[in-house]
Amino acid sequence: MKPDDLNLRGNGTAARQAFNRALLNPASVALIGASSNQKKNTARPLRFMQKHGYAGAIYPVNPSATVINNVKAWGSIDQLPDNVDHAFVMIDSAGVTNVIEQCARKGISVVTIYSDGFAEAGEEGIQKQRELYATAKRLGVRVLGPNSIGLANVHSGAVISVNAAFEMDNLTAGDIGIISQSGSMMGSLMSRAAARGFGFSHLVSVGNESDISVGEILDAMVDDDATRVILLFLETLRDVQTLSGALERAHNAGKPVIAYKLGRSEQGDALSQSHTGAIAGNDAAVDAYFRAHSVIRVNMLETLFEIAPLAARYAHLRPDTWRDTPVRVAVVTTTGGGAATVVDNLGLHGFVAVAPPTAFISHMAGRGLNIRQTPVIDLTLAASSEQYQDLLTEIMQTDWCDAVLCIAGSSAQFYPQYVVQPILNAVETTHGNRKPLVAFLSPEAEASLQLLQKNRIAAFRTPESCADALAAFFVPLGQHQQETRRPVTLPVGYPTRGNLTEPEAMAVFSALGINVVPSAMVQPHAPDHSIDYPVVLKVVSRDILHKTEAGGVRVGIDSDEFLAAALNTMAEQVTAHSPQAKIDGYMVQKMEGRLVELMLGYRHDPLVGPTVMLGAGGITAELKPDFSLRLAPVSEEVAWQMIHEVKHTQLIRGYRQLPEGDCKALANAIVAMSRLALIDAQPVTEAEINPLFVRQDGVVAVDAVVRMRDQSQM
Amino acid sequence: MKPDDLNLRGNGTAARQAFNRALLNPASVALIGASSNQKKNTARPLRFMQKHGYAGAIYPVNPSATVINNVKAWGSIDQLPDNVDHAFVMIDSAGVTNVIEQCARKGISVVTIYSDGFAEAGEEGIQKQRELYATAKRLGVRVLGPNSIGLANVHSGAVISVNAAFEMDNLTAGDIGIISQSGSMMGSLMSRAAARGFGFSHLVSVGNESDISVGEILDAMVDDDATRVILLFLETLRDVQTLSGALERAHNAGKPVIAYKLGRSEQGDALSQSHTGAIAGNDAAVDAYFRAHSVIRVNMLETLFEIAPLAARYAHLRPDTWRDTPVRVAVVTTTGGGAATVVDNLGLHGFVAVAPPTAFISHMAGRGLNIRQTPVIDLTLAASSEQYQDLLTEIMQTDWCDAVLCIAGSSAQFYPQYVVQPILNAVETTHGNRKPLVAFLSPEAEASLQLLQKNRIAAFRTPESCADALAAFFVPLGQHQQETRRPVTLPVGYPTRGNLTEPEAMAVFSALGINVVPSAMVQPHAPDHSIDYPVVLKVVSRDILHKTEAGGVRVGIDSDEFLAAALNTMAEQVTAHSPQAKIDGYMVQKMEGRLVELMLGYRHDPLVGPTVMLGAGGITAELKPDFSLRLAPVSEEVAWQMIHEVKHTQLIRGYRQLPEGDCKALANAIVAMSRLALIDAQPVTEAEINPLFVRQDGVVAVDAVVRMRDQSQM
Repeated sequence: MKPDDLNLRGNGTAARQAFNRALLNPASVALIGASSNQKKNTARPLRFMQKHGYAGAIYPVNPSATVINNVKAWGSIDQLPDNVDHAFVMIDSAGVTNVIEQCARKGISVVTIYSDGFAEAGEEGIQKQRELYATAKRLGVRVLGPNSIGLANVHSGAVISVNAAFEMDNLTAGDIGIISQSGSMMGSLMSRAAARGFGFSHLVSVGNESDISVGEILDAMVDDDATRVILLFLETLRDVQTLSGALERAHNAGKPVIAYKLGRSEQGDALSQSHTGAIAGNDAAVDAYFRAHSVIRVNMLETLFEIAPLAARYAHLRPDTWRDTPVRVAVVTTTGGGAATVVDNLGLHGFVAVAPPTAFISHMAGRGLNIRQTPVIDLTLAASSEQYQDLLTEIMQTDWCDAVLCIAGSSAQFYPQYVVQPILNAVETTHGNRKPLVAFLSPEAEASLQLLQKNRIAAFRTPESCADALAAFFVPLGQHQQETRRPVTLPVGYPTRGNLTEPEAMAVFSALGINVVPSAMVQPHAPDHSIDYPVVLKVVSRDILHKTEAGGVRVGIDSDEFLAAALNTMAEQVTAHSPQAKIDGYMVQKMEGRLVELMLGYRHDPLVGPTVMLGAGGITAELKPDFSLRLAPVSEEVAWQMIHEVKHTQLIRGYRQLPEGDCKALANAIVAMSRLALIDAQPVTEAEINPLFVRQDGVVAVDAVVRMRDQSQM
Repeated sequence: MKPDDLNLRGNGTAARQAFNRALLNPASVALIGASSNQKKNTARPLRFMQKHGYAGAIYPVNPSATVINNVKAWGSIDQLPDNVDHAFVMIDSAGVTNVIEQCARKGISVVTIYSDGFAEAGEEGIQKQRELYATAKRLGVRVLGPNSIGLANVHSGAVISVNAAFEMDNLTAGDIGIISQSGSMMGSLMSRAAARGFGFSHLVSVGNESDISVGEILDAMVDDDATRVILLFLETLRDVQTLSGALERAHNAGKPVIAYKLGRSEQGDALSQSHTGAIAGNDAAVDAYFRAHSVIRVNMLETLFEIAPLAARYAHLRPDTWRDTPVRVAVVTTTGGGAATVVDNLGLHGFVAVAPPTAFISHMAGRGLNIRQTPVIDLTLAASSEQYQDLLTEIMQTDWCDAVLCIAGSSAQFYPQYVVQPILNAVETTHGNRKPLVAFLSPEAEASLQLLQKNRIAAFRTPESCADALAAFFVPLGQHQQETRRPVTLPVGYPTRGNLTEPEAMAVFSALGINVVPSAMVQPHAPDHSIDYPVVLKVVSRDILHKTEAGGVRVGIDSDEFLAAALNTMAEQVTAHSPQAKIDGYMVQKMEGRLVELMLGYRHDPLVGPTVMLGAGGITAELKPDFSLRLAPVSEEVAWQMIHEVKHTQLIRGYRQLPEGDCKALANAIVAMSRLALIDAQPVTEAEINPLFVRQDGVVAVDAVVRMRDQSQM
């Protein structure tokens, strides 16, 4: 484990250990507002802890009861003993701040708040939550929630939660930790996973994240020996700085983090926001964030836990370099149709089912098994159990595939051991030089799924989630912190808020090292310039956002006479269109040739911070998005990946013998743009070159926008 | 039921009834090659039929046994009694043709062949299958298979199959029929569905479809009173004419047909072909076929059966007109997170979760329930069971949504009745003026899923399949046979095979009523023409496919002098490049202006027949497909749908105040192109206008290709 070099709200190692223990492994728990009426939600935590064998001390606090479920009840927090680690608050929101003060007096350092009526309930609630947080911070009490359905340590039975899912008679303890921004989904995921034999270490519902955030809990789970893989159910991202640090520690500790995040569709995103009071984000930026921090993002709900054994067992096999060729999967099946359902989906993810090479076929023939050179190796009625195992073992020692997919037919339903044992043996045999292996069971085969899960082999219930998992696993690990962060500065005297003018924006890009179109400022009374014709004429004004609509753009000017006339006409039109606008002058730009038009952008995303984006340019790109986005700054290597991810760039990368563009210059421009993130305090909120012309010899920015952050956004 | 007006291989009604009975409901079954060794697959059918209570006569045929499982075994087919309805053949492929002859002698009219080694096994097998079919046809025996895992009548217990899935102790009889091109998937689907309480009427594996096809079985199921909804698991399409007739009968009988078809990815398509020996198709064409025939196509495996209650109960509510606005779903939930998982996926399908209007909120307040104006109506801890039921009932009588989605949280896990009963009551109450209602259960909730299924309410295990089902259900019903099919003829004297020259192709399009670019033929020694300058010059030769590469295209010619020079240069270049090519001359085309370039194509798809396609034009369209495809011919209404489906056309439909194109003329051109399907014997295999220019006043074809079918394709 790495030494504690993270700046976690001033916690030193000992303080953090104490916090982690009180949060995840408390020795004593107070239940503020525990009911003696077993039908009430607030009676649940005590019942759950008794049911699931919690050996620590439980202190129900209820002024109108003396004993609940054979446990002494306490009239008030003040009466409690002094050694309480964790309090769970289930009272009306009005009394919560008062409870925090009482907890502080008793030295209770971690308080989980189930009470709702805070930020999720509108303006008044937001204010209430602010006050709650301020009080807690002042008194040194850490708060999980409010509006948290609670948390559970499955190993100790500390089920500090009202989630009905814990009604089940036996919780399966295991090595999966889950952190959820939705309380009900925490229970739903656990119930689904438990039915398949997955065991959990900790489950934590973060509620409104007023204080203790997903990142801090994740950090605690990194230090938790019982947790080997961490699942996140997310509606938004909050406090990404803490999260980023925790993700890096998780990565260094070899604990994979897997995320399901709502908001892939605008509709879903809007819903998460209304549901959580979170600010609007951009799913592509969230995606970039996950990639940068090596988080495995799944698209399907059940994949979130189904992928856990794949991610945990083969954490060391996740690719760390980007590739331009498809991932090759060796598919071994006892059902042609079942295999096809997965392969069809893998194809949609750009993976290929790969046929074994001739040499391997001969090799297997030498071992007594004849297989065909087809993308799916179908062993239906063609191999014994030993031969099946031998084939898998041999495949995993070759280099013609990147992963192995085993698909089982009806035998999985009736003879689980028969199907599972060869897979298990093959995985054990090849320990050390293996490839990721996953299984899909074509029929209903509960027992086989459970047997595989028990042996920590990823097994999927649907072909779609199987393909989703493989696709997610093979996203390359993120680039970690770049070492050399040369500072970047804006030209002196530039506006610090609002829009820059186009010449100012061009100067910024030029200072970053991006080639900009030769241009000169002119005025109707002073039209002289030294730019070669033909030229474009544009009005320059901070107040005119849409130059074309204002009559402020004229292309194809090929002489001084034409220019003089155009200048006068433009001045009239612009003034007529925008009489209030302050006109700084007019800009003459050289008309440049190009192979393609791209769009290069920078945006300070409200959730994840600086991002850089390369996309197809022009109006059709609005209709058919074709872009690549990463956290900024990026290295040149990442810039090349981005170029490859934008389909439109194929037109300058040898497609159909078209002339090739200067992709090296393009990559440099992407890196340069991304360095806007290195300006002190990141004052640029948005920057865009649209279009950026790519030529055979270099790139050239022909339209430039830079927007500085308003003070209110600081 | 419609009178029998379909041309089904000459079967009259009585003959068809007899065939249907022998196929789906045989009173006696011979098992050719039944083993007495219970470990063998070939012992299964007898065991299965005994286990599942088949009351008909079973005749195992095995020369080396006298009794198998207490049933008399017969030494040969010749010794069998004369009343056998159906024979199941489980012997080596070499003896199968001989068995057909024996069956014919015994008057056995339907023979299902499990034996493999036919078309699925390469060239030799294909030949063997041809012989088998020829023999059967000559003798009047109908064949299911070969390479069929068999079929089952669940109501009668006639399990004429070796599929291991029938080992289960209790088969649930129901109203779902399934026809599968994969034998193993038939079993897998049944096992998955059975575990959820779905009951089947018939399951049929078609094997290689040498004779009895999916269409003919579907037709039999339309006439089968026990079958209410029909599921298809498809790897390819064969004999679409029969299938189309059966689909129309199914539609008229109110029996929904739901299909899962492999081949959405190229990889999957290739696999299906290698797996089945089928010819290459085009998934978009298959999609168009399903739409035209009102088949509900699902994308996820489990949706295939999960959607059945939705399709069956609400068959009359499927939309029959196309719409340009999103489908609106009223979402009622007891878990915010669970609702968000479905809504996020619905958003990816273009659906919206719709907030109730103010009037409805007041209406419900008047009934004692306060709800908020949010896209998800969250009743968590906010409503009694009666109020929940009342809300659903009221929603289903309004017009502000198109469907109702109920999402249940942890209560679904522990109190199934509590969750299911209000839904059930609401559905029953609103019989007659209801909307499609579906449910998703957020936790693991087997019992609730089964209870909903038992009451024929569609309930989904995953948020993804729930969204998949709603999306599939709301694809509008297909247009049925067009009434007026005016014949179309090609100009006299045109080539009947191979490529037409461009002037010939232009003449074809012109004859169809499509405006083509003004042009004239010239020769180097006779350059006179009457086309307005500027013009484009193109070589005309049947032998030159890629004119540009051959130096056979020159744009921007603006005078007679320029033209004369260009003609001579082109003649030299083309001759140098393609010395063997026969040059018909050169074509002068007017250079036209346009708003956008589209591509309009016609293709005789090898699987589904004539199709028409509209797409974005130009090279970038190859990189980013943007097209709409339908079976040809199309009506003007469908042509308008196609225009709306191509994103690129937004540029001529008012996007950002850009000038609008003549979409009426475009729609007419699509209809005209699609009428190539009406030429007798459909001799055109491919036709393409690329680009088709769309202007403010009409459209104009500026490049034309027409390819006639080779004789070998006839």
